[in-house]
Amino acid sequence: MPDFSIGVDLGGTNLRIAAVSADGQLLEKVTLGTKVALGRDHVIAEMCEAIQRLSAQYRTEGLFLGAGIGIPGIIDMETGMLRKSANLPGWSDYPVRAEIERRLGARVFLENDANVAALGEKWLGAARDVPNMAIVTLGTGIGGGIVLNGKIWHGMNGMSGEFGHVPIEPDGHACGCGGHGCAEQYASATAVVRMAREAITGGLSQSLAAAAASDAEFSARSIYNLAIQGDEDGRRIFRRFGKALGMLLAGLVNVLNLDMFVIGGGVSSAWDAFAPTMFEELRERSLVYAATAPEDPLGKEEGASAQVLARTRRKTIITRALLGSDAGLYGAARLAAPGGA
Amino acid sequence: MPDFSIGVDLGGTNLRIAAVSADGQLLEKVTLGTKVALGRDHVIAEMCEAIQRLSAQYRTEGLFLGAGIGIPGIIDMETGMLRKSANLPGWSDYPVRAEIERRLGARVFLENDANVAALGEKWLGAARDVPNMAIVTLGTGIGGGIVLNGKIWHGMNGMSGEFGHVPIEPDGHACGCGGHGCAEQYASATAVVRMAREAITGGLSQSLAAAAASDAEFSARSIYNLAIQGDEDGRRIFRRFGKALGMLLAGLVNVLNLDMFVIGGGVSSAWDAFAPTMFEELRERSLVYAATAPEDPLGKEEGASAQVLARTRRKTIITRALLGSDAGLYGAARLAAPGGA
Repeated sequence: MPDFSIGVDLGGTNLRIAAVSADGQLLEKVTLGTKVALGRDHVIAEMCEAIQRLSAQYRTEGLFLGAGIGIPGIIDMETGMLRKSANLPGWSDYPVRAEIERRLGARVFLENDANVAALGEKWLGAARDVPNMAIVTLGTGIGGGIVLNGKIWHGMNGMSGEFGHVPIEPDGHACGCGGHGCAEQYASATAVVRMAREAITGGLSQSLAAAAASDAEFSARSIYNLAIQGDEDGRRIFRRFGKALGMLLAGLVNVLNLDMFVIGGGVSSAWDAFAPTMFEELRERSLVYAATAPEDPLGKEEGASAQVLARTRRKTIITRALLGSDAGLYGAARLAAPGGA
Repeated sequence: MPDFSIGVDLGGTNLRIAAVSADGQLLEKVTLGTKVALGRDHVIAEMCEAIQRLSAQYRTEGLFLGAGIGIPGIIDMETGMLRKSANLPGWSDYPVRAEIERRLGARVFLENDANVAALGEKWLGAARDVPNMAIVTLGTGIGGGIVLNGKIWHGMNGMSGEFGHVPIEPDGHACGCGGHGCAEQYASATAVVRMAREAITGGLSQSLAAAAASDAEFSARSIYNLAIQGDEDGRRIFRRFGKALGMLLAGLVNVLNLDMFVIGGGVSSAWDAFAPTMFEELRERSLVYAATAPEDPLGKEEGASAQVLARTRRKTIITRALLGSDAGLYGAARLAAPGGA
């Protein structure tokens, strides 16, 4: 039995904990509700208890290497404290890492949730065969994480990979960050619903208006369902989404020259609806580019003219994430494995 | 006398060669015309002769560590060959590095010209006190080079830092790269002249039309001179320039989270004309940001709200390059110094 570490995905809704062997085999996964309302100390106690239970169980078979915890928020890597976390009020200015280390008597790594998702896809997912990659997570907003030479790139203070706030429209929609025309205003679940509501308010779509009237939730998924049923107004919204995402990615490809971009997050399941216009933008705007089907991440090509191939000899791959919501869990576990952090 | 290396800046017009001590002191600098028309072999022979002359002269005083050569083009780092160089026809598919190493009997490093400029500003210029930085060179187009943890970031195949081809206008001006709306279509010498000619053709500016009629060159410098003399049409062009550059930089700041961006290249001398709108965009669109005066690159602040400061505690600095056209020469020399490449 090999050595193992424990990965934790501390979300606003679920607290998920997994024991993963150092060679990437899942040993056991536990999902608990995150009782954020009961306060920081309660969540930390429950997390530590679950980690201790799992580590005690597998310790008989291999060495417990430590725990990695993925957290939605900005983490101060030096102090192991949270700088800011919208979903975890009351966690800032508290020595989170030190407290958990004290309770566990083991090494603990804190990391931003998008960064651990990137590391998970790098370790065991779509990007396992390339050294340099980034993940773009499409959810309520756009998250991002960058891995260079197999390690998370944090930047000077943990604020790297904020792909959602790359401006793509000079005079675009206002964004919560204080800017406007940010990528996540066009390529996120929030953006999909807003664009649909704009079409409804403008009297531009009877089908969307009917759907909104009959569907109390009226989410990005509702609009995606319309789109794949052939609704032209729904399809137009995802074409716009893909165009924005393609423009974002083209810029990232030209700046970073990574081997691969992995597209994850809940809204990546709408791939069929947004990917065609995304690839169109990428083909036109990026200097090195190729896309592959997710089943074959290093094989087939989609696009990439002979001219581009001749000029560059190697192309950036744009593909779907493979690990779904487990990417962060595996990436968190990887932090505590040898060579992970 | 310390050990020394030799830096070469192989431009389309000038061939500049400098002996630089390992602690960054210029020993001697030679400028020759690049006789590109006489062919590759002639240029290489002349370069090697000058390197040998300089190295023989200073070798009596310290160890000759090798030579670094900055070249405008895409370099294959593994083979030491040029993949593509618009200014150096006939240099592709020729073992440039191996041939020069053979002639000199010393270690030789080839590097893209924007990358060595970045390394030069990191070593001895505006970014000497920070580990992570990029240079944005404003010239005919926009060049770029990224330094992470003190080393040039090449990406997977030397195509990183193509800042000029980050799209900033969804439906913008066509670009030579095949895309459209690229940053260099709005923030380069070429763009300044094009925007002026557009204004003239559209009958929108009598002052620019008069200047163009009386000035055979009618360059970005001519238009800058009008702008600083108060011409509103010239000023408008540089405001547009600054807005585009600010949008580009804001995205880069949010993606890379570097300590510093250094603005260099010939058109950076128009700083006063474009910087105000550049900083405006940066303040609005970037999550971490501060600007400083070039004389005081780590001191004074320009912008950066208290809220942003409180949220991040550290800010990216946007400042002017300090080494001018010598940045690449120093950076090239640095490649051959210990820990440089």
